[in-house]
Amino acid sequence: MSPYPRSRARPAEAVRKSAASCIGSRGVMTTDYVIGVDAGGTKTVAWLAGTAQVLDDAPVASASSGPGNVRSVGFETAVRNIHSAILGISAEVSIPIRTLCICAAGAGRRIDQTRLQEWGESLAVAENVLIRPDVEAVLASASPDQTGVALISGTGSLAWGRNADGQTRRAGGWGYLMGDEGSAYDIARRALQCASQMADGRREKTPLLPVLLDALKLQHASELVPVIYGASQPKHEIAQLAVHVFACAVKGDTVSEAIIADAANSLSAMVAAVTRKLHLPTDCPLAIAGSVLIHQHMYRQRVMNSLHRSDESATLVEQPVRGAVRVAQMATS
Amino acid sequence: MSPYPRSRARPAEAVRKSAASCIGSRGVMTTDYVIGVDAGGTKTVAWLAGTAQVLDDAPVASASSGPGNVRSVGFETAVRNIHSAILGISAEVSIPIRTLCICAAGAGRRIDQTRLQEWGESLAVAENVLIRPDVEAVLASASPDQTGVALISGTGSLAWGRNADGQTRRAGGWGYLMGDEGSAYDIARRALQCASQMADGRREKTPLLPVLLDALKLQHASELVPVIYGASQPKHEIAQLAVHVFACAVKGDTVSEAIIADAANSLSAMVAAVTRKLHLPTDCPLAIAGSVLIHQHMYRQRVMNSLHRSDESATLVEQPVRGAVRVAQMATS
Repeated sequence: MSPYPRSRARPAEAVRKSAASCIGSRGVMTTDYVIGVDAGGTKTVAWLAGTAQVLDDAPVASASSGPGNVRSVGFETAVRNIHSAILGISAEVSIPIRTLCICAAGAGRRIDQTRLQEWGESLAVAENVLIRPDVEAVLASASPDQTGVALISGTGSLAWGRNADGQTRRAGGWGYLMGDEGSAYDIARRALQCASQMADGRREKTPLLPVLLDALKLQHASELVPVIYGASQPKHEIAQLAVHVFACAVKGDTVSEAIIADAANSLSAMVAAVTRKLHLPTDCPLAIAGSVLIHQHMYRQRVMNSLHRSDESATLVEQPVRGAVRVAQMATS
Repeated sequence: MSPYPRSRARPAEAVRKSAASCIGSRGVMTTDYVIGVDAGGTKTVAWLAGTAQVLDDAPVASASSGPGNVRSVGFETAVRNIHSAILGISAEVSIPIRTLCICAAGAGRRIDQTRLQEWGESLAVAENVLIRPDVEAVLASASPDQTGVALISGTGSLAWGRNADGQTRRAGGWGYLMGDEGSAYDIARRALQCASQMADGRREKTPLLPVLLDALKLQHASELVPVIYGASQPKHEIAQLAVHVFACAVKGDTVSEAIIADAANSLSAMVAAVTRKLHLPTDCPLAIAGSVLIHQHMYRQRVMNSLHRSDESATLVEQPVRGAVRVAQMATS
């Protein structure tokens, strides 16, 4: 869902007019544009904005394309999608771009960042190119000075923060085999495990078992193994079941409730670890992103309760690309 | 490791002599031989034995080959390995075989069993061909009438039982994503998760973290992600770390101890569920197999304590192929 009314989004062909309106008093076009890119695991979003545009404004132009996570889809596919999104907002206009900031998922390692940097510079669309991890866009969306903590829970999960000294720390984000506690995948995997135990008679049956079987259109628990292990993308197909665990918990299913409570504690522990390590105040800016935390209000509230914070003290970030724009603006000013 | 002294194992060329010794009083060769095959995830073992040979005796001939798990290595590779093992004990002899019993891992589904049955019959090495799941060989190794419970914990885990009415039940065996609680993979995965939490500052540090890093020859926890997710066989490489968790637990590492205690409870819960569902007595025959349970004495003892049974009341099955031979013998008599 777009965070701004669709009518306010301006297509690429409108950019020329906007650019024209920036021609200064001396008749010279002011080169005050930036591009922010949020390259995620599901899609890539690019925004063109003025260098001084405020964060809540709609972009001058926007475009989106496929996944831009260099680790999960591979470098070639990721940059093709990132390029496609950038072309979507800049192909038909010839305004100079001051800064291009690409906030990319899966680009935590220096080797990937260097490769993206070289590729971004080779595009020659901007004077400066910045490559940042995707979490940085989330934090920048919520915190003007980019200090505080960003908490993300979608298919995976992690917390990431920065203090006034510029130090950064991460907790979580170890992937589906070693961590990602409190993520959609983690919640759904635990639910499948409990459902299997119910089918075996190792655990008392609750509605969770039939609900999961219904969701997968299965008659019997024994069909779970070929379906789950035969999936082309088991991680994503398992993660999609989390919504049913939340629904069961809301209806009072005790096993689902326990899974959700434990997951919420895991996420708050990530935030607490980052806050502590960076000596941040416990009421520092908190940016919350990721499908699970954005859409599951009850779950988000549990995390906030566990952090002894009010639900309103966090900023929900549905479009991290705003943060990518802000990083580009701050580097430009 | 061979469960019988190597000198007692007789090579294929010795079979002819054994067969000759079976020529009856009327000068007609008695067709009293069977072949048992244990087709596992790591290797396949085939034994040639007399129809009346007692379980503890060495086989007339034995041979082994690569993995025979139809699900993990694929049908073609599995049957090539199974064939190779059978050829290893029967290629040079022309004695008639009464029954060939193949106990195969990963052949729990009827479709795989039917395919193996047809393939086994096409070999034309035996009058009768039996296809059974691998757990059946484990139970048959320990229980003369094939009733009781088999508990296996290696890379994966499950309990499986049969009562006097011939009813069978399983608990566990849901694979690494949904279950296999108490297996080497499960223990090591939990340890990696705890180690990651230690690295993040989400959990107090214990020696488990440096021990796991040492085992993987890593300097820093951040190197875990590329190593684990970059492994060609992450499941097996993770499972191999379990031995270090056992070692830490023995040295008093509290986190490792808690993981092991929980894992032991998971295994005893599987046995209890099967025993209860089949209305078996709690002191029914118990066959124990799998590398973890066979080699980790302390762990096995914890499982037995949790079941309120003495360590001696279970039979350790290091060579399930003995059970495959027994199933073949019982079908022949």
